[in-house]
This record gives sequence, structure tokens and C-alpha cells, in this order.
Amino acid sequence: MSQERQSSGVRRSVRVGVIGGGQLGRMMALAGIPLGLSFRFLEPKEDPPCASVGEVVRGAYDDPDALDRFSDGVDVITYEFENVPVDSAKRLSERVPVYPPPMALEVAQDRLVEKETFRELGIGTAPYRRVDTREELDRALVELGMPAVLKTRRLGYDGKGQAVIEDPDSAAAAWDRLGGRPLILESFVDFERELSCLAVRSRSGELRVYPLVENAHTDGILRESRAPAPGITAERAREAAELVERLLDHLDYVGVLAVEFFDTEEGLLANEMAPRVHNSGHWSQDGGGVSQFENHIRAILGLPLGDPRPIGWAGMVNLIGGIPPRGESLGAGGARLHLYGKEPRPGRKLGHLNTRAETLEGLERRLAELGEIAARYGEG
Amino acid sequence: MSQERQSSGVRRSVRVGVIGGGQLGRMMALAGIPLGLSFRFLEPKEDPPCASVGEVVRGAYDDPDALDRFSDGVDVITYEFENVPVDSAKRLSERVPVYPPPMALEVAQDRLVEKETFRELGIGTAPYRRVDTREELDRALVELGMPAVLKTRRLGYDGKGQAVIEDPDSAAAAWDRLGGRPLILESFVDFERELSCLAVRSRSGELRVYPLVENAHTDGILRESRAPAPGITAERAREAAELVERLLDHLDYVGVLAVEFFDTEEGLLANEMAPRVHNSGHWSQDGGGVSQFENHIRAILGLPLGDPRPIGWAGMVNLIGGIPPRGESLGAGGARLHLYGKEPRPGRKLGHLNTRAETLEGLERRLAELGEIAARYGEG
Repeated sequence: MSQERQSSGVRRSVRVGVIGGGQLGRMMALAGIPLGLSFRFLEPKEDPPCASVGEVVRGAYDDPDALDRFSDGVDVITYEFENVPVDSAKRLSERVPVYPPPMALEVAQDRLVEKETFRELGIGTAPYRRVDTREELDRALVELGMPAVLKTRRLGYDGKGQAVIEDPDSAAAAWDRLGGRPLILESFVDFERELSCLAVRSRSGELRVYPLVENAHTDGILRESRAPAPGITAERAREAAELVERLLDHLDYVGVLAVEFFDTEEGLLANEMAPRVHNSGHWSQDGGGVSQFENHIRAILGLPLGDPRPIGWAGMVNLIGGIPPRGESLGAGGARLHLYGKEPRPGRKLGHLNTRAETLEGLERRLAELGEIAARYGEG
Repeated sequence: MSQERQSSGVRRSVRVGVIGGGQLGRMMALAGIPLGLSFRFLEPKEDPPCASVGEVVRGAYDDPDALDRFSDGVDVITYEFENVPVDSAKRLSERVPVYPPPMALEVAQDRLVEKETFRELGIGTAPYRRVDTREELDRALVELGMPAVLKTRRLGYDGKGQAVIEDPDSAAAAWDRLGGRPLILESFVDFERELSCLAVRSRSGELRVYPLVENAHTDGILRESRAPAPGITAERAREAAELVERLLDHLDYVGVLAVEFFDTEEGLLANEMAPRVHNSGHWSQDGGGVSQFENHIRAILGLPLGDPRPIGWAGMVNLIGGIPPRGESLGAGGARLHLYGKEPRPGRKLGHLNTRAETLEGLERRLAELGEIAARYGEG
């Protein structure tokens, strides 16, 4: 299409390339198409969620030929998952601007590098140890105590690649399952809740911070978010924003960055970061401000950013493993439905429901109703 | 795609067929894709605004073969312009539900039938006369007085197919230009402003009414809308809603219906209706409630409708003839940009800017800024 229009002398629209064809890319496109942009996705799987909102270049993320076809004629490239091969991002960035910068991928793809980066910047984390051998695991367990969590340094998500160690037996079992790969042992954090802070920084340097979000997980999968996090003090909110800004500066970051924190009696401890739009920011689509998806797109194009604040209180419930009938979802008070076009499978994120309310009590009532619907049809 | 998925035994998504591939269809799809729907458009022109959000069946609106290809495998059909050939709508409705009902097209396509329908239902209109001959025009001018407006009964939009008659000379000129077609002469209404009322009715009978909108036109083209219409009394709002509900009932209507009114000292006079989503409802995309596009889609699928009310005050400015640089549009306070993917041409609607504010004063400030930007780059 681009070629056709160009050769006829008619101007073509700005085209955004997205590595990955899942729901996050789909929602980016739904936010970007109204800005007059068109989208192209690089995706190895057939019939991905993004197929309805742009062109799909089918190919592996590390296939040079696919990367070339993908990047040919796009104006800017971003990604919707953090396990994009760094070499691919670097290759692409020689031809087209790639945001967030590939360095953010390098940090986010390795839990050890990530934690060391947090520490360097004065951002608190749970105590941790690098673990490459069984001996290092034993020593780390002595130093950190039990319970502790053994994690692969790479390629873990939604609670996968993790094992809780409570005693010598579970240490052996964890090693049998995960050993042989680069690992990290982390102290078990006694936290009150998990918070996340999303911020967005534009090519121009403009910065906006979304309010702190409270997240509820089950089995390592996000179930619900509330924004702003209920009962948060202004100091805590400023602290989170300040820590995330340090990361943005350090990484010379462009786009949306999400950082997950444990909220503890001693303060915020950073758990991990995601160099992309994030499930805990989905409420922003219907919160009354500018969504994380639109602000991410604005940021990578150097456009002015929009107000990230919700009007009143906003919340989200994930639809996992099963999809309620549309009528039931939309019949709930103030529900907004977002489906991803994916086939149901236990434990799979298939969509989410957003809602907002003037008061926290109103939000809680609405989230309870939505959570009940999600649970009735969900699996895993 | 449908065939492929069906033959593999995997369920396919609900598919909505839209007659017309312009911006209204595009915005319907952008609202419907998050609900897990897919879209197909029937459109004769190449590379229409809808191409980025669904499948386009290219063909004339009255081509039986194109109509068959378009309707094959869609679950429900709607349209995005009121000049859909009624025979086509009826042919399609033998195979697939078509909403709004074809009868609404018949009424809306003929200004005389439309006005007679208003009158039958006790909805006030300006005085009018049917005009088929020069003699009828002269008699009508005597009866209604001058100034008056001569209009073609069919296929007029954005001020086209109309002529203002102020004296015998302009009567002759108007007849020279428009005579020979079925015409209607309408009294010139001394109105304070134009209002529109959008309502949506679901297949289940559920009904929601958007707040009355104030519209400002130049050269017959809508420039700005404000919702709710400033200074409207509760009685006037109820009156408008009640009149529109009469129309919905009479037409056994499903979907969004827009009715334009003149706000006069003697009360509301209906000017015309549009059996579709409407430019004067675009503010609803960013007003904080459920947009006219999403509610239209919900209605034709029989899904529960969403709250149409804006949070505070909402407004819209059309981008006509030229598109401001994105950075300039988005740099204005609270601006939300909606471009249609159309090539600029004088007098052509290319996009719009939405905004909202807590107070009417705040809205006016923001609209002034947006109007200035639209005017600086607009033509015609």
C-alpha cells in the first residue's frame, strides 16, 4: 500500500512498526489509528490479535529477512513484549528509530542486571543473590534465609520459571526444576500489596507519570488493578514517581515504562520493570484521561503527551481462561469491555473489563461485580 | 478468514457488515473491535478510511453481486450514510438483520416524507410546501413568504442542493439550478441556534438519550458542537428526548438516530433526521461516557447500552479542508485527535478534535483554542 501511494505521488500516513502481534500491540493500534497512523506488526504466529488493525509481517523475531521486510517503510519501531531479541532491536535501530531504546531490553531481560540497575540508582530491592551452581544456591539460602524465591534470570513471566523455597527439600526440588540456567535467589518480601508505577517520556523529553496503581495477583497472574492506589500517601506517590524518573533518565528512555513495587513497612522495594505498556495500566483506557497506549504512541513520535490522570477512581479486572457472554459483561454497572481476539485456554489473558466511579466505595462495588463475572467464566 | 477459521473448527468472531467505508464506519469499527467484533465494509472507492480496521468488499451499493459477497458470513448489517439504496437494504435484510430498519432510510432520504413524518407524530417543523413545478414554487413563495429555502427532496448534504430565495430574481436563479427534480420549499426559520438530539435504541428495546447538543455551522457545514447544550432548560431537554422517542417508536428503530432541531422562541422545530451515528455526537468519544459509536454497535447486537452522559462538559471542533500538524493539535489543552485517513480537499471533513472540561468556561477556552488551530489549517 505504501509503495502504491508513494508512486502515485500521494502522501502516505506515518507508519508505526510493532514487534509482537498480541493484545498490547492491538490496543496500541486502536489508540494510534485515530491519530492518523497506520500499523505493521512482526509476529511469527498465525492470525494474531493485531491482524484486524494493521498489516502483519509473519516471521521469527530473529529472522533477518523478516526484520528487513518489517522495517521497510516504517517510520518508527516499538515493541509490545520485553523478550524481543536485543540483536534484532539493534539491527532494526540502524535503519529506523527503535523506542524504547534497546538498552532497556537488556536490563529488563535479565533479573540480575535489572536488580543491579535498581541498586545502582538507589532504588531499593529485596535482598538477592546470583545463583549459577548448586553450591551458590546453598550459600545464598544461608545468607538470605528461607522462605526465598528462586527465579530464572531470563524469560520468566506470569509466575513461570519461579519456585518458592521453604526448606531443604523444596530447595532440592527447585534446583532440579530450574538448575543449569542462570538463576537469582530473592528474599521473600513481606509486603502489604503490590503497586506499579507507569510513566511515559517523549522523544522531546516531556514526562508524565500515571498515578500509582494497586495490583492484586493470584497464581502469579494479575487479576485486578485500582488507580490511584487506595490510601496512598502523597509522599509515597512522589517517592515512586521519583524512582521511576531516575530509571527513565538512566536509560534515556522513550515510551511507557512500568515498574512494579512491593509496598512494605520500610518503603517501596522495586520488583521488576517492563519496558512497554503494561497490564496494570489498562484502566487508563477508560479512566477519563489519555491512555497508556495513546501516550506511548505520542511519546515515540515526539508528540505532546496527554493528561494521564483518571477522573475519580478507575479499575480493571482481567478475563483469564474464559470469556463471559458480552451481554453479561456489558450489563454490569459502568463496564467497558476489551477483548483481544484470542482463543480461550486456561490461564490465558483473553480480555479485561474496565470501570470507573466517583468514589472509592463506588469503584469497589463495581469491581466486585466485574470480578464475580470474570471468575464465573474464567479458568486458571 | 472466516472460512479458514470455521473449517478448522475454531469459532470465529461476530462480524458486523457496514455499508459505506468512510469515517463513521471507521469509528464504529474502532469502537467495536475491543468488543471482540470484526468488521466488513461495502465501499465502491479505493483505499477508504475503513481499510485499516476491517475487510473491504469493493463494489457499488446497488450491485447485487457485491451485496451478496458483502453479506455472506456477516451476522448483522448497518450503514454509515443515509443514502444507501433502499432496495439494497431490503435485499440484504432478507438474509441478515439490517439495522436501523430500511423504513428509516425511506423517511430520511426524502425531505418531504421526513417532514410529513414529523408532523404526523406531532413534531413541529418550519412551514413547508411540496414543489414540483415552477408554478408550485411561485404559489409556495406567496404562501410561505420570503426569505425561504428551496431544497432538493433527495441527496442533499452539508448545504448542497439548497438555495436561499430572498426575492423574485433569486427565485428564478434557484429554479434554474434546482428545478426539474422533486423539491421542497421551507420557510426561513428565525432560530437562536441549532440543537441536535441523539438517541440509541437496542434490539431489546432499551433506550438511552444523549444530552442535547448545540451545533455551530458555517456554509452549511458543522464546525463545532457542545454537549450538553449550554443554558438548556430541563423542560427543553425532556421535550427533545420525548420527540425523538416518538420517532424511534414509530420507526421501530434500532441503533443511533440523530435529529436536528431549530431552537426557536416558540419551541423546538425539527429540521431533519439522520438514521445513523452523527457528526454532532463525535464529542461522545472523549466525553467520559459510552460513545455513540459503541452504543450503536451494542444496540444492533442487542447488548446492554452504556451511559451516554459526559462528565462535565464536552465539545468538538471539525477539521475541514486541511489537517494541522499533530503536534499542534495535541499540544492544545486536553485535545483528543481523530483523523479519518482522507486526503485533504477544500470543504472536506478530514478529522475532528474533541475536548472536555469541568466547567463551561473551561470548555469555551479549550474550544476557542481548538477552533483557532482548525481555522488556521482549514480550507472551506
